[in-house]
Amino acid sequence: MQTLEKTHPKLQELRTRLTEINDIESASSLLYWDQATYMPSGGAAARGRQMATLKQIAHTKFTDPVIGQLLEDLRSYEGSLPYDSDEASLLRVTRHDYERAVQIPASFAAKFSHHSAESYEAWAKARPANDFAAVQPYLEKSLELSRELANFFPGYEHIADPLIEEADYGMKASTVRSLFAHLRSHLVPIVEAIASQPVADASCLHQHFPEAEQIAFSLKVITQLGYDFQRGRQDKTLHPFMTKFSTGDVRITTRVRENDLNEGLFSTIHEMGHALYEQGINREFEATPLAGGTSSGVHESQSRLWENFVGRSRNFWQFFYPQLQAVFPSQLGNVSLATFYRAINKVERSLIRTDADEVTYNLHVMIRFDLELQLLEGQLAVRDLPEAWNERYRADLGIVPSSDGNGVLQDVHWYGGMIGGMFQGYTLGNLMSAQFFEAVQANPEIPTQIEAGNFNTLHDWLKKSIYQHGRKYTAAELVERVTGIPLSIDPFIRYIQRKYGELYSF
Amino acid sequence: MQTLEKTHPKLQELRTRLTEINDIESASSLLYWDQATYMPSGGAAARGRQMATLKQIAHTKFTDPVIGQLLEDLRSYEGSLPYDSDEASLLRVTRHDYERAVQIPASFAAKFSHHSAESYEAWAKARPANDFAAVQPYLEKSLELSRELANFFPGYEHIADPLIEEADYGMKASTVRSLFAHLRSHLVPIVEAIASQPVADASCLHQHFPEAEQIAFSLKVITQLGYDFQRGRQDKTLHPFMTKFSTGDVRITTRVRENDLNEGLFSTIHEMGHALYEQGINREFEATPLAGGTSSGVHESQSRLWENFVGRSRNFWQFFYPQLQAVFPSQLGNVSLATFYRAINKVERSLIRTDADEVTYNLHVMIRFDLELQLLEGQLAVRDLPEAWNERYRADLGIVPSSDGNGVLQDVHWYGGMIGGMFQGYTLGNLMSAQFFEAVQANPEIPTQIEAGNFNTLHDWLKKSIYQHGRKYTAAELVERVTGIPLSIDPFIRYIQRKYGELYSF
Repeated sequence: MQTLEKTHPKLQELRTRLTEINDIESASSLLYWDQATYMPSGGAAARGRQMATLKQIAHTKFTDPVIGQLLEDLRSYEGSLPYDSDEASLLRVTRHDYERAVQIPASFAAKFSHHSAESYEAWAKARPANDFAAVQPYLEKSLELSRELANFFPGYEHIADPLIEEADYGMKASTVRSLFAHLRSHLVPIVEAIASQPVADASCLHQHFPEAEQIAFSLKVITQLGYDFQRGRQDKTLHPFMTKFSTGDVRITTRVRENDLNEGLFSTIHEMGHALYEQGINREFEATPLAGGTSSGVHESQSRLWENFVGRSRNFWQFFYPQLQAVFPSQLGNVSLATFYRAINKVERSLIRTDADEVTYNLHVMIRFDLELQLLEGQLAVRDLPEAWNERYRADLGIVPSSDGNGVLQDVHWYGGMIGGMFQGYTLGNLMSAQFFEAVQANPEIPTQIEAGNFNTLHDWLKKSIYQHGRKYTAAELVERVTGIPLSIDPFIRYIQRKYGELYSF
Repeated sequence: MQTLEKTHPKLQELRTRLTEINDIESASSLLYWDQATYMPSGGAAARGRQMATLKQIAHTKFTDPVIGQLLEDLRSYEGSLPYDSDEASLLRVTRHDYERAVQIPASFAAKFSHHSAESYEAWAKARPANDFAAVQPYLEKSLELSRELANFFPGYEHIADPLIEEADYGMKASTVRSLFAHLRSHLVPIVEAIASQPVADASCLHQHFPEAEQIAFSLKVITQLGYDFQRGRQDKTLHPFMTKFSTGDVRITTRVRENDLNEGLFSTIHEMGHALYEQGINREFEATPLAGGTSSGVHESQSRLWENFVGRSRNFWQFFYPQLQAVFPSQLGNVSLATFYRAINKVERSLIRTDADEVTYNLHVMIRFDLELQLLEGQLAVRDLPEAWNERYRADLGIVPSSDGNGVLQDVHWYGGMIGGMFQGYTLGNLMSAQFFEAVQANPEIPTQIEAGNFNTLHDWLKKSIYQHGRKYTAAELVERVTGIPLSIDPFIRYIQRKYGELYSF
């Protein structure tokens, strides 16, 4: 885009303004990262205010009518450029963001941000206390604000559509519902068939694994997978996440349980998948709206591709298992690769989404997605949510939470202030990861390379096909461009049948 | 100040604006802290730009004519309040800052910030290469910009005055010169007398002391001294500093040399002294211009008071030395307290300011101060600076740098873009620390308490007399209020004579 800067002064001016806004947002991200990693408890009160201040300034600067005028002035110039040129894409994506942002009054943004902070605090206390009643009024307010937000975008087909579009542009409640219904009809019988068989023995993962050794091993793994530590780092936190301050500084966070080898290792690979996406974006997009993942679904497709399709594959462990055994000889020295592989791919109907295996995971997501829609439609009252939640767990997973803490209170999402658009990205991501991973098999050498600890072909293909483009293409465009077909559940079902058909009979 | 917010709506509006500006500045401080502690190298380019963006926004918001109008509208209200009321002080200090800030055109601030970054980078390469010629053009530009900056404040007596006032409000070149001449006339003969005696044996400090044990011991020490880890933390860095994001989050940084016990321990206590000051400010001043140290001299008085008057005293080590010996039994088990005490108070004419002992330290500072004035006056050309530096070291300290790296290139200050006002605060701080420490001896129990590891009376006295006030009083007001007399060199000279008269004969 440097050439363009020489050709159109208004685009240059727009970009200067976008860079300033990006810098404020990056600072806000750092305030969050620090809060979640190193901040002493005494810093909390001021920190919340500081983040709100920066968000408010960024919003004000982005919705400045000057931005709208520049976009207007550049409209004919944009029309003269190819759709997928960097310049046209920058203008298209900026216009999309701008048109959304100006629909939301500053007073609503402030009210919403204030409520989010209060609701989060109430949840943080209510969850360990299993006290749904304590968060019910906050959730009711969240529902009201979510509806208000949706109504800034009139003309929708379903009230959830504007909220879904914020995370997964191009998706609508009806499309997602139909995809999910189809997926559910395949998954439920598979889960039932597996549930009737003996549960896999995963006890080898639940010995004592000291934290320092776990972290050192994880760092070694993600270095080999291609995470660039010159442009990133990993720190400990309570709820792992990936964050970015520039394409040169993309960080991940992790947590470790000493009695569960799954937790630290796979959440590290998961966050690294998000980070590889961000590290792989064309550096010329730096500090513009193009420099980010294109949707929550595509982002999740990359975390899940690396976590599951790579990190839980037999090929992967053919390379890494001897190294893991060398780190934990007394714990794993006598555990065979076959036993270990079966343990890390154990399927079980369980209560907690984030701990769920690949087969049952999407059932957890679909429960939440359906409940969100019912709440927004007014078909379900907030006070009846715990019962509805438990009912759906009984129906879909055959188990019922012992308390709201491991039931309706388990995920932070709704308690961060918004209901709607929060969950579909997880399952869309799983579907896309299967579809992308099938496409990459056009390179037949990849499985053998993975067995040899070589991830370059895979990583290069992902960079070239997906990462470099940032937000240039929408999720739907990207899926079709990369795989030749629209998003489908078939690759995911084929993957589950092949992989788990070997481990279980169904 | 909460009551006031209920009484004058314009002060409330002013405070809301000041809080927003403070939040931006705090975010900028966090960007710096992160850069100096955890940021991967890939983040550097964007980080410089992000810090500049935030500074620019804060400057623009603070110099907004609306702030000037509010201050104007509140002038008669301020006149109706007692001088040292919180509200009058907030208005007075804000007006002072505002009147300075609006003198500096935004274009100059941007030019200066850009030059600072370039000059710093040039220095970072030139210092290890001993290449003064490489920085000479940057330093010439810095001198030009420093003069330009001073000339935004016409009516000065000496061109350095506006620059000195920025760090040490109320001080002028003439006042500092006369204080320093007086101090120098006392110090030079003492240093000469000590230099003619055998150098103290400090070899006990230069054994191998593993980093982790050094850090753990330092943390134990500063916890006992009163640093509040609920409202702070310590991290490793290259050049230690203290920084603050709110009164609830005041952090320090440190570095450790495994072959020098002095470095980590005393720089930790030094930075903690700065931090105790900031942690002790009245929390009702939060996020206003009152919430900071009142001058660079007063700030340094607190770091040096804790580092030297407490941390290098015999009483202090009567308590801590057995604990230090227990941490390093093979290194210090056979070293007596007397030997250790003499080692940490070894006096030697040396080249590096930051490593200098209490007796010679101010000679280093005064050399820099005099050279700054000569440069600004046009009495000394930048190209002649290395020779002038070496000449003064020969005259004042009897030694000459072997290269510019341990000579004129050693301190970052001038290479960060400004010449003038950079150094006087160090020596003013040493003088004040002696004067404050003499005043606190009105509590005769303090030495015995320190021997018992109890620092509460001292810390409480400092909080009550100095810390809580933040910027309410100027340095001169504070010194008189607390000690009953204006700033004087006498307490410092008395302290040096008493302490070092015991260790050496002069």
